[in-house]
Amino acid sequence: MKRMFFQNLEQAVCNHTLPLTTLIDELAFNQQGLVPVIAQDSNSGEVLMLAWMNKTSLEQTLATGRMTYWSRSRNALWIKGASSGHYQQLQSLRVDCDGDALLCRVIQQGAACHTLRKSCFYIEADPANHSAVITSSG
Amino acid sequence: MKRMFFQNLEQAVCNHTLPLTTLIDELAFNQQGLVPVIAQDSNSGEVLMLAWMNKTSLEQTLATGRMTYWSRSRNALWIKGASSGHYQQLQSLRVDCDGDALLCRVIQQGAACHTLRKSCFYIEADPANHSAVITSSG
Repeated sequence: MKRMFFQNLEQAVCNHTLPLTTLIDELAFNQQGLVPVIAQDSNSGEVLMLAWMNKTSLEQTLATGRMTYWSRSRNALWIKGASSGHYQQLQSLRVDCDGDALLCRVIQQGAACHTLRKSCFYIEADPANHSAVITSSG
Repeated sequence: MKRMFFQNLEQAVCNHTLPLTTLIDELAFNQQGLVPVIAQDSNSGEVLMLAWMNKTSLEQTLATGRMTYWSRSRNALWIKGASSGHYQQLQSLRVDCDGDALLCRVIQQGAACHTLRKSCFYIEADPANHSAVITSSG
């Protein structure tokens, strides 16, 4: 998974800059041309969802400020909120040390989850009781 | 990506419980038998890293309370911190609405990133300036 480009960045000091197009070109998209994207509420810090972007959706997200994913089920660009109104406004976008994951802080309009829960992560393991629990109602 | 099991959970109310083994059996592991896992600092809310688990590493994580991933580069179980001492103690583990991503809140010993930065997400896009910036030194 290691890429020389990102290994070379490891020693870079704080505030070192590089061209954005270079960074995007070096991202480690998977065999389907996708990278996983974490959407985090920029106000509360709550992790809202994990979805996927291809290069086009990433570029569109950066250009428009509206989170735009790649829908693997529909095989199409997916402007989050286009049908529900639950848009996500991009506040910051970060790349990880291996260049194979993105973290986006967003302002979430309404619910992130299609079940109308705030976050998609609403099923919590309770290993002490060999069970799992639903943490919020839809 | 939709699975009937998770569709049926969508209408479940808060505090509804189910067997943990059932939930794990129904997870949507990908063709490599893996799911992406977000590790979030349980104190600060900072997103630390994204890694991958197979079923065995998930079960070991739940049994031991120590975050155990699947290393795709080494093709082996990876107890985070086993070589660096930078263990992650599991505080909570959640599954998302599609059953294809996990969110773990952890207590991080030392740095999450192998560059000794707190978080792996240290490269931030600056689209207004067509650049990206390193946000912390290694």
